[in-house]
Amino acid sequence: MVSREDMSAEDRLIARFFAPLATHPGALALSDDAAFVTPPKGSDLVLKTDAIIGGVHFFPDDAAQAVASKALRVNLSDLAAKGARPLGFLLSLAIPMTIDEAWLADFAEGLRGDSVLFDCPLFGGDTDRTPGPTTISIAMFGSVPEGTMVRRAGAKPGDRVFVTGSIGDAVLGLALRNAAAPKWKLSDTQRKHLVSRYLLPQPRTALAEVVRTHASAAMDVSDGLAGDFAKLCRASGVAARIDVGRVPLSEAAKAVVSGDAAMLETALSGGDDYEIVCAVPEAKADSFCAAAKKVGVDVSDIGEIMAGSGARFEKADGKALTFARASFSHF
Amino acid sequence: MVSREDMSAEDRLIARFFAPLATHPGALALSDDAAFVTPPKGSDLVLKTDAIIGGVHFFPDDAAQAVASKALRVNLSDLAAKGARPLGFLLSLAIPMTIDEAWLADFAEGLRGDSVLFDCPLFGGDTDRTPGPTTISIAMFGSVPEGTMVRRAGAKPGDRVFVTGSIGDAVLGLALRNAAAPKWKLSDTQRKHLVSRYLLPQPRTALAEVVRTHASAAMDVSDGLAGDFAKLCRASGVAARIDVGRVPLSEAAKAVVSGDAAMLETALSGGDDYEIVCAVPEAKADSFCAAAKKVGVDVSDIGEIMAGSGARFEKADGKALTFARASFSHF
Repeated sequence: MVSREDMSAEDRLIARFFAPLATHPGALALSDDAAFVTPPKGSDLVLKTDAIIGGVHFFPDDAAQAVASKALRVNLSDLAAKGARPLGFLLSLAIPMTIDEAWLADFAEGLRGDSVLFDCPLFGGDTDRTPGPTTISIAMFGSVPEGTMVRRAGAKPGDRVFVTGSIGDAVLGLALRNAAAPKWKLSDTQRKHLVSRYLLPQPRTALAEVVRTHASAAMDVSDGLAGDFAKLCRASGVAARIDVGRVPLSEAAKAVVSGDAAMLETALSGGDDYEIVCAVPEAKADSFCAAAKKVGVDVSDIGEIMAGSGARFEKADGKALTFARASFSHF
Repeated sequence: MVSREDMSAEDRLIARFFAPLATHPGALALSDDAAFVTPPKGSDLVLKTDAIIGGVHFFPDDAAQAVASKALRVNLSDLAAKGARPLGFLLSLAIPMTIDEAWLADFAEGLRGDSVLFDCPLFGGDTDRTPGPTTISIAMFGSVPEGTMVRRAGAKPGDRVFVTGSIGDAVLGLALRNAAAPKWKLSDTQRKHLVSRYLLPQPRTALAEVVRTHASAAMDVSDGLAGDFAKLCRASGVAARIDVGRVPLSEAAKAVVSGDAAMLETALSGGDDYEIVCAVPEAKADSFCAAAKKVGVDVSDIGEIMAGSGARFEKADGKALTFARASFSHF
């Protein structure tokens, strides 16, 4: 006889920590083999997966809530850049034996908070023990009206180039976290700003619809503005001139760069910004700025798309900035 | 100036090994932040994620092609049990530094072969290096006509209970692989059969539509028939009587059990079968069997659903089989 008492420890863990996040009826409270959802009529699904690994993408002693948020937000950032509204996500979680229930409770709380904040419920998951580091893989799906996903390809000569928020904070925050930046003169507030920008991405979900209705091409800035934007130019078959002086830096990043000029290159090529860079036809630029303001997302005009190939980052003296390494790669 | 030469090692790896699998136009050859797909009209999406980890779900020295197949097939099995047709998948791959390009080439070939065989293309992926074991997380999505996903809940008293294929091969194959079964007298063919059933699941994708149009409840048998079927009964709020003598065993499994009677319990409660157990209204049972035969999937009538609670596995002498551990759990 097999009865209720045979519910496995994995099932109990899912029921306790993750089922409360599965608020969509089609998730069946995570009690079935799979979930279902009726896609919005006339829409395309937008699909994305990104994983974060302890010791690689986050520090093993980062707060579990922040780790959960980062795992979700790196995916939300991609959806926003594509103009997509999030619908939900699947979670694949591999945890070491050393992870305890308190960590899991905090992790689930982090997921819950963001799934409410970004209206993106959990649809299913898989939980395993691993002899390796904590590995969190999120598969996220969203929607756009059919045929309207914003691509990297599509930028046209004459388009303006916009970037959201500020660039370079996260890579400088990571340097602070690694204690590799002893000489920077920063206030406590500035230091905290940079570190928090590494710890907790701020996906521009609020701007997704504005990007979708204005941008000719867009992408998420996650591996460094210089390298990522170069990919957008390649995909679009265009060149671009970026005015380095107009790339938005936070007060904290400005303080770093003013004391250590070499950090400008780091800021422009380091990873983990989770901002959006996009090309907007000149005729739509004013409307884009107004719409961005309305949804509370800062956008900066940093340059222009041109015919040709190559993304030139031009300094005030008219010379091009060169990058030893234009973007981050794990390989 | 940032140019083509700055394509990262990760991008090159994706372009070389995985882009050829991304045959759907909406996958954009994996060259964008996300993919898009127009869901079939009038359909629900069915969503599933399952991961496999080296040293946990497969042996680190298993052939890379087989590892890739297993990663896909454990997800395909769930979709089949829900009556869903696969549409595509996302891959999140974390690989140790020791993995080389030959392994990746074989792994990609395994994915490619199965993605063609099961008509389930790659829509996106994420590839990272990990200090831990190889971790492969697949998120798969499929479709069913709106409102028709087959659930665990839904079995009714009077329904017949069917199971596909044969039960227990994989757990016995795993025992052979672990060299923990020295006394079994098996032919080479029998031994190979059991080991291959652990290595390479055979998802019943061909039966999905038959399950959808006949079953009142169904689930994938992946953590042991006894425990999994008990979950179906609990979800449906019913009891069941299973005739142990009618549970389909392969010739190889029969040979094991005839020499070592205790292995029957192992066969009925061990994991990795990747078969389907389902409840079918008696009036549809003949049609179900005929339709299963037509698509070439063996099905066996193993018992009946009754009012009450608890799944009783009854032996020839009328006594109930008891299980020390009804299903497999990683926790």
